[in-house]
Amino acid sequence: MTTPSAATPPAAAPARRDAEATKAAILRAARHLLARHAHADITLKAVADRAGVSPPLILKYFGNKDALFARVMSFEADVPDLLDAPLDDLGRHMVRHVLVGQTERGADPVLRIVFAPLQGEQGDILRANFRAQVGDRLAERLAGPDAGLRAELAVSALLGLGVMFGIARGTHLRAAAIDDIVDRYAPAVQMHLTP
Amino acid sequence: MTTPSAATPPAAAPARRDAEATKAAILRAARHLLARHAHADITLKAVADRAGVSPPLILKYFGNKDALFARVMSFEADVPDLLDAPLDDLGRHMVRHVLVGQTERGADPVLRIVFAPLQGEQGDILRANFRAQVGDRLAERLAGPDAGLRAELAVSALLGLGVMFGIARGTHLRAAAIDDIVDRYAPAVQMHLTP
Repeated sequence: MTTPSAATPPAAAPARRDAEATKAAILRAARHLLARHAHADITLKAVADRAGVSPPLILKYFGNKDALFARVMSFEADVPDLLDAPLDDLGRHMVRHVLVGQTERGADPVLRIVFAPLQGEQGDILRANFRAQVGDRLAERLAGPDAGLRAELAVSALLGLGVMFGIARGTHLRAAAIDDIVDRYAPAVQMHLTP
Repeated sequence: MTTPSAATPPAAAPARRDAEATKAAILRAARHLLARHAHADITLKAVADRAGVSPPLILKYFGNKDALFARVMSFEADVPDLLDAPLDDLGRHMVRHVLVGQTERGADPVLRIVFAPLQGEQGDILRANFRAQVGDRLAERLAGPDAGLRAELAVSALLGLGVMFGIARGTHLRAAAIDDIVDRYAPAVQMHLTP
């Protein structure tokens, strides 16, 4: 980070925004292709064409094709925000996180697991990542017996809320205030965290 | 139902089983094609070919193509079992229903909503059916205010359990005894039914 001199406009922020937008476009393109083709059949050039960038730019931002795909199939970048609350308030925080994700961004990144293909390598990688990066990470926060199972049950409740909002599109749920839903639904998550 | 004489083998039951198996194959074929093509582009012959039956047999069992597709996209046949318990025990019953469906049949029919296409007519029909045949039907059973919202929240928890079991394939959940899961998870459903 450099401080722009008085003579030059503050170009750093817009440039960084452009880089973020380009990275997001590349990730979107990779996600789109991974949902439709086998991992091995997708070329860097196909991702670049779809994202409207050059293959070398992808290499610059992500290193190589495998690193890019690992990033698309990872929950690593999304979980810190999801779990960013004290344990006693974590149920409310996670429910709010899913609802805000749905209302403001159309989905929560953690909900990508719902669209995991039931067969094939990509689905298996997503599932393994989800278990390690979401389930296990939450379980580490929990005290008492059966932390692994309790973490999965808490995450179950969250996933279901996302499905009802984003896929089933429940009319009552979508009409309710986020605070109202948090008040009603968070206890169903919290009971697994601090039973 | 006729009582077979001693001279003839009891042929009625196997014949009925064959008819059920054929109907199931036709429904599977229709479901497969509907997941991949627009409603209007699917011919009766395509369904028949895929099911390994003749088009007239489909007409015999289902009447016409639209009736067949309506059946595939309906939850009408599945909901009575799901809701077949007194209100005070309905949370436990529904959780057990989803878990037994997953372990014995690979999925619960109600979970088809999770795979509803996000765009297009078929997804919208599934969503409308799900709301009317599952959400509204459950809401009718509930006393007190906000029955519609509470029904959607109860169903959210159920859908999430199905997703965690069948799609995310949580290892702890799949290793646990059904009774244990029912004991732990049903209160998160019941709290919306009888708050």
